Amino acid sequence: MRAVTIAGGRISVEDRPDPVPGPGQLLVRVAAAGLNGADMMQLRGLYPAPPGVPADIPGMELAGEVVALGEGSSRHHPGDRVMSLVGGGAQAELAIVDESVAMPAPAALDWPAAGGFPEVFTTAHDALASQCQLQSGERLLVTGAAGGVGTAAVQIGIAIGARVVASVRKPDLRPAMAELGAEVVDPSEAGAHGPYDVVLELVGGPGFEANLPALAPGGRIAVIGVGGGARVALDLLTLMGRRGRVMGSTLRSRSLEEKALTARRVEAELLPLVEAGKLRVIVGEVFTLESAPDAYARFQAGGKMGKIVLISCALATGS
Amino acid sequence: MRAVTIAGGRISVEDRPDPVPGPGQLLVRVAAAGLNGADMMQLRGLYPAPPGVPADIPGMELAGEVVALGEGSSRHHPGDRVMSLVGGGAQAELAIVDESVAMPAPAALDWPAAGGFPEVFTTAHDALASQCQLQSGERLLVTGAAGGVGTAAVQIGIAIGARVVASVRKPDLRPAMAELGAEVVDPSEAGAHGPYDVVLELVGGPGFEANLPALAPGGRIAVIGVGGGARVALDLLTLMGRRGRVMGSTLRSRSLEEKALTARRVEAELLPLVEAGKLRVIVGEVFTLESAPDAYARFQAGGKMGKIVLISCALATGS
Repeated sequence: MRAVTIAGGRISVEDRPDPVPGPGQLLVRVAAAGLNGADMMQLRGLYPAPPGVPADIPGMELAGEVVALGEGSSRHHPGDRVMSLVGGGAQAELAIVDESVAMPAPAALDWPAAGGFPEVFTTAHDALASQCQLQSGERLLVTGAAGGVGTAAVQIGIAIGARVVASVRKPDLRPAMAELGAEVVDPSEAGAHGPYDVVLELVGGPGFEANLPALAPGGRIAVIGVGGGARVALDLLTLMGRRGRVMGSTLRSRSLEEKALTARRVEAELLPLVEAGKLRVIVGEVFTLESAPDAYARFQAGGKMGKIVLISCALATGS
Repeated sequence: MRAVTIAGGRISVEDRPDPVPGPGQLLVRVAAAGLNGADMMQLRGLYPAPPGVPADIPGMELAGEVVALGEGSSRHHPGDRVMSLVGGGAQAELAIVDESVAMPAPAALDWPAAGGFPEVFTTAHDALASQCQLQSGERLLVTGAAGGVGTAAVQIGIAIGARVVASVRKPDLRPAMAELGAEVVDPSEAGAHGPYDVVLELVGGPGFEANLPALAPGGRIAVIGVGGGARVALDLLTLMGRRGRVMGSTLRSRSLEEKALTARRVEAELLPLVEAGKLRVIVGEVFTLESAPDAYARFQAGGKMGKIVLISCALATGS
């Protein structure tokens, strides 16, 4: 099979042996696989793949068709349209998926949208619903809201009934964000639009410190992205005075059992909203698997709205 | 009545009118009132008293005898020995206590111990049990463990079944801390004795940053004290990798209803351990109300083990 590979900080596309599914696993012919910040960190050597996952084939999410089952797999069948988080290895023509983590790919999503769904919607839902327990009527700030997780989080926040403020750096991306139903602000003004019950921090850096005083009493900050700087200043007295909480999280480091639980929550709480047309996967740009280096360069350039997705083979274009 | 007063950053002891209990309140003849870090911050103008509390009489906890009831008060009666958190005003001969927050003062505690119990045991129990959900078998680090909250937290941690590491700066305080059942370390070595499931941060400053990498996966940091520095550096990638949480809290800013709930948990979960002799209030030094300026100076000098408590009138010495 063809696969995106990482070696020495460089991206290329190479031939690799087809993977073989083990017990409880599915072999999936990949139609689409989204790019994520974690891939960029892996490229820089900062986010190594966990054990049991191809060390040099990136990709944390995919959508495709089941082509073979490992021993004991029974939840899905050959020919099923599935989408899933994976620990790595998604950016290839074939990939291994743990069937407990796979979800059905709803008919409402075409392949690029399904390939860009799992990581950002699972991440945003886990942060907002499970970790921060965002409630209807609360005020939510999403920083760096125009990216993949951001566009998912804004939609989930609105679906929960929160009042959503989206901070977006590039003025030309603001109208599309406002269409999703958020109040859109420049990052420099986000602190003045609080107080916020929940902050989804997708940027880090100086904005983290600037927005802390805008936290409401009992406010929660979930840190998911740090492209603007991982090392920040934290005023503990402000945090104490707000009775605030700062929570860090990554999906990748979780056990298979935790990921399976997370997938069940997404299936139960988000897929009905997808099928009802209330959640859309915002796909910014699509690249073929062979042009993966261009896709990575585009991701790193930033300033995009929504997901960047790789598509592979006839499956994706024929859907 | 005589009362400790704060004006322009200075402590004095002055005559003030006797307070009058309102509906649901008790008038208490104060036998003992502990000093706390919050008093020092109030002295520096950093921690103003909430509405409805004497603005210039400090003191957040007391023990004493009920002498009069406000309208509708029925949980306690004149002559009862009580102890309680208050929003302020405890460091005086008479003080107002909301009866929903008052607890019976167990016979196992003499007046100085009862006057030094509410703030530190409620703070430590709330942080460890309610916020961090410390579990039996988990590893707990208490920084600045020799102080009032620290000695309470070490004992509560051990009662919960945690393995407790206590960081103590002054070598001469370490043997007494080890007697409480903790593994005692120098602050500079605390990071090497992890990983910690829970950190009770009572110091802040550079140690906060140094100990973060010692957080276990899913670890929780409760920030209660920042005498070593409120502004710290936080590495968000480390927090994300650990799926860690940093929680700030103060008791003072909570609503009366929340304080009442907290008091009921302390009554139910800690007072039986006090009566069984499993929790001791470590009283470091006792001062009379009239010598409050000396007590404050002693508190600010630091390096003490346990609580500094003011006692007032014949009640305390006669018990």
